[in-house]
Amino acid sequence: MPITEEELREQIGKLEGWKLEQDIMVRKYMFNEYMKGIAFVDAVAAISEAFDHHPHITIDYKTVILRLPVDVEKLDIRQANEINEAFEKNR
Amino acid sequence: MPITEEELREQIGKLEGWKLEQDIMVRKYMFNEYMKGIAFVDAVAAISEAFDHHPHITIDYKTVILRLPVDVEKLDIRQANEINEAFEKNR
Repeated sequence: MPITEEELREQIGKLEGWKLEQDIMVRKYMFNEYMKGIAFVDAVAAISEAFDHHPHITIDYKTVILRLPVDVEKLDIRQANEINEAFEKNR
Repeated sequence: MPITEEELREQIGKLEGWKLEQDIMVRKYMFNEYMKGIAFVDAVAAISEAFDHHPHITIDYKTVILRLPVDVEKLDIRQANEINEAFEKNR
């Protein structure tokens, strides 16, 4: 059962580093090495395929920004948590 | 010896798919599979490290856009050609 939009907004507020910009979940990740950011993008891609929900990704040298359109059917919160875990492993 | 800006602009005109937007070389690459685009980004990252010149990268599902600021000291043309070759291998 999909969660309500209100529940989603509340949960996004608890997610480390993510914020809501209109209907898009956004998080900026910073790395101390360029290739660590690239390895993180690889992990994000694998997670995105698993969820069949692909964030818009920008790589600006050591900064990676993800923009994930909110889709209450697609468990964004779980996906965002997995992405945060991937960041902890690759930072 | 760095090439002149005029020579650079002429050479960019010959590069497949690249165009100049103000002082930034831009090319959009499209893939028929999401993970092919990601493998291409990995190749672009390795090339960028070798040239120590990192394009701004956006990944929008199966579309990858590179924006490489023109730097006449840094042989952008050779880098762009290597990136184009990586695209042929990963498309």
